Amino acid sequence: MAERVYLDWNATAPLCAEARAAVSAGLDIVGNPSSVHAEGRAARHLIEQARAEVAALVGADARNVVFTSGGTEANALALTADIDLNGDKRSCMRLLMSGIEHPSVRLGHRFANGQVEDLPVTADGVVDLAALQMRLQALTIEEPGHRILVSIMHANNETGVIQPITEAARIVHAAGGLLHVDAVQSVGRIPCDINALGADIVTISGHKLGAPKGVGALIKREPSLHLSASLLKGGGQERGIRAGTENVIGIMGFGGAARAAAREQGRAAVRVAELRNRLETGLRAISPEVVVFGEAVERVPNTTLFAVAGAKAETVLIALDLEGIAVSSGAACSSGKVAPSHVLAAMGVPAALALGAIRTSLGSTTSEAEIDFFLRAWSKVVMGLSKDRRGLAA
Amino acid sequence: MAERVYLDWNATAPLCAEARAAVSAGLDIVGNPSSVHAEGRAARHLIEQARAEVAALVGADARNVVFTSGGTEANALALTADIDLNGDKRSCMRLLMSGIEHPSVRLGHRFANGQVEDLPVTADGVVDLAALQMRLQALTIEEPGHRILVSIMHANNETGVIQPITEAARIVHAAGGLLHVDAVQSVGRIPCDINALGADIVTISGHKLGAPKGVGALIKREPSLHLSASLLKGGGQERGIRAGTENVIGIMGFGGAARAAAREQGRAAVRVAELRNRLETGLRAISPEVVVFGEAVERVPNTTLFAVAGAKAETVLIALDLEGIAVSSGAACSSGKVAPSHVLAAMGVPAALALGAIRTSLGSTTSEAEIDFFLRAWSKVVMGLSKDRRGLAA
Repeated sequence: MAERVYLDWNATAPLCAEARAAVSAGLDIVGNPSSVHAEGRAARHLIEQARAEVAALVGADARNVVFTSGGTEANALALTADIDLNGDKRSCMRLLMSGIEHPSVRLGHRFANGQVEDLPVTADGVVDLAALQMRLQALTIEEPGHRILVSIMHANNETGVIQPITEAARIVHAAGGLLHVDAVQSVGRIPCDINALGADIVTISGHKLGAPKGVGALIKREPSLHLSASLLKGGGQERGIRAGTENVIGIMGFGGAARAAAREQGRAAVRVAELRNRLETGLRAISPEVVVFGEAVERVPNTTLFAVAGAKAETVLIALDLEGIAVSSGAACSSGKVAPSHVLAAMGVPAALALGAIRTSLGSTTSEAEIDFFLRAWSKVVMGLSKDRRGLAA
Repeated sequence: MAERVYLDWNATAPLCAEARAAVSAGLDIVGNPSSVHAEGRAARHLIEQARAEVAALVGADARNVVFTSGGTEANALALTADIDLNGDKRSCMRLLMSGIEHPSVRLGHRFANGQVEDLPVTADGVVDLAALQMRLQALTIEEPGHRILVSIMHANNETGVIQPITEAARIVHAAGGLLHVDAVQSVGRIPCDINALGADIVTISGHKLGAPKGVGALIKREPSLHLSASLLKGGGQERGIRAGTENVIGIMGFGGAARAAAREQGRAAVRVAELRNRLETGLRAISPEVVVFGEAVERVPNTTLFAVAGAKAETVLIALDLEGIAVSSGAACSSGKVAPSHVLAAMGVPAALALGAIRTSLGSTTSEAEIDFFLRAWSKVVMGLSKDRRGLAA
């Protein structure tokens, strides 16, 4: 096989060494973690070890970690009216969420449509905190006695733009609301401490940080926050919040990846940021007209979403794929669609430009040589595009 | 470590060789199956291969297989009012289910409590088809124009008793209803062809047949059956029925286990049945008063649920565990509880006897030597129990 360069870490990261070792060890684990015999207790112990490792990565208490089948399930589990904090059983009658949330938040929540409102974002892709504050103030007057749930992601999956979560938490809490944060794209890339963020509930996913696909977690800041509306009921797994035999090897891999991320993320972020700068500098040299979305604001260090006018993302993606490079035209989940990204639409980017948006996302094993390989390929693809455009103009 | 004998295959089976090989190969798969580049397409191809293998095991069409995070999720996904067959969008207003269903059916369905009715079972633990027929006839008169969903498991997880699914399907369909079958404990052990059974939807779980824990499937007989009430929404995975990045290594392992089961299950069933007979003959020789639940009716070949009066399951389980043997006191999911089994309660077994019920469940690698090891340990434990009882009587 020809050389391949994988620059699509936001879609999924390759398995990291520690996750691989943990999964491999897990293949020999026989017991069901709910069984009381030695085999069952051994499996239970490994899950609890992983739970502590995942908790440590976000500065949470291990007992506040609920393992799920991934970020989508964690978001669905979190985004429900029936959240009970400190015994206060008022339902959340409203869900406010930013227009740039992941589809698993935007479509996966469990509120009735009439209960859901969008929060605007700036042209740079940052949630508008003034709008959040105004809307919360209005709602506490219009609908007193009701609690409001707000969902804002930590870092956007397409642009990489980091959202002002700490400030948002302060605003939401001042209005008596609860804040859910989808941190799937931030955890392991930038510090993501649940207490520093002030989020009440955080969603993370294993496979974005080097664990196997198919495992995630919902993490509560306070043990007194009770998720009474389970999605999966039956057995008493995950303290009754999430029934079903646990994905033991996935959870073990998640633990390994969390351990590696906690140790390496500071160093990795510096390296990855340098590589991203090299990539963006190179992009601008080759295509001076390139637009990098969210470049004026803080982004996770690995992500670049860019476009050149007149290019079609599908065409570029296929051309790059043939050159041996894996990139994305936005969220992998919706990459079958040709509709422009809802994230760029929320930022007010014209559809014509948005339809050309290409995302590169780097990771811990990305090398300078890979960035240079990408830039050579981009150069070639851009030349093809110009020819096409000249052809069209002729 | 001392020798251990694992006789708790109904709780979970050890990973089989083909599942292990598939999972190990999966560790090198980089792409997200939703990505359109080569890495994504490679992952997608492996999932579709596994889908065909799982479909083949139950005689279904691959496009009718929906992968889930396990049996619990598949049951929750299936058991909803919003099932649309052949474009007939009448909601299912009633769920009838047997009293011996798994907790993920009994507690995990998505009907309102007032819509759910229990079906009785005989003293042998077989669902009462006459009662089913009568109730369906009454409901079609009382609530005409409504559709009824019936859920009956193929083999009970505690007793191993096989339910008369083909006959149940005939009765349910004659009344215009739909039949869901939880085949988690039958698939891979006895023939489980979705067309022969006549079930409309079947739930299976990977880890009961040698795949990793954390993967299952909901399988439709007809492509025209549409599950419109998704549990997880967001991305378009699993034809829009189940959003979330797929558990690629789990699904690959499921495919491997399904392939092995399809090839081996006939031979394995004969071997396992012989071992189970050896176990039950030995049990009776040691404890002539032993009660084997469901012994008069057809059971899956690997399961024995038995009790001797006056014994407490927890005590026996711990004693056997110390002797190196892993067995269960019923469903693993509820093994933390000391309540008597709901299955035995539904069969009318007195609580005093039910509280002593021990389940042995064998599998493809179980050996004669292991059965004999178990019988020696049982002998020892029984002697201890008799001493206790004599002590109590004195």
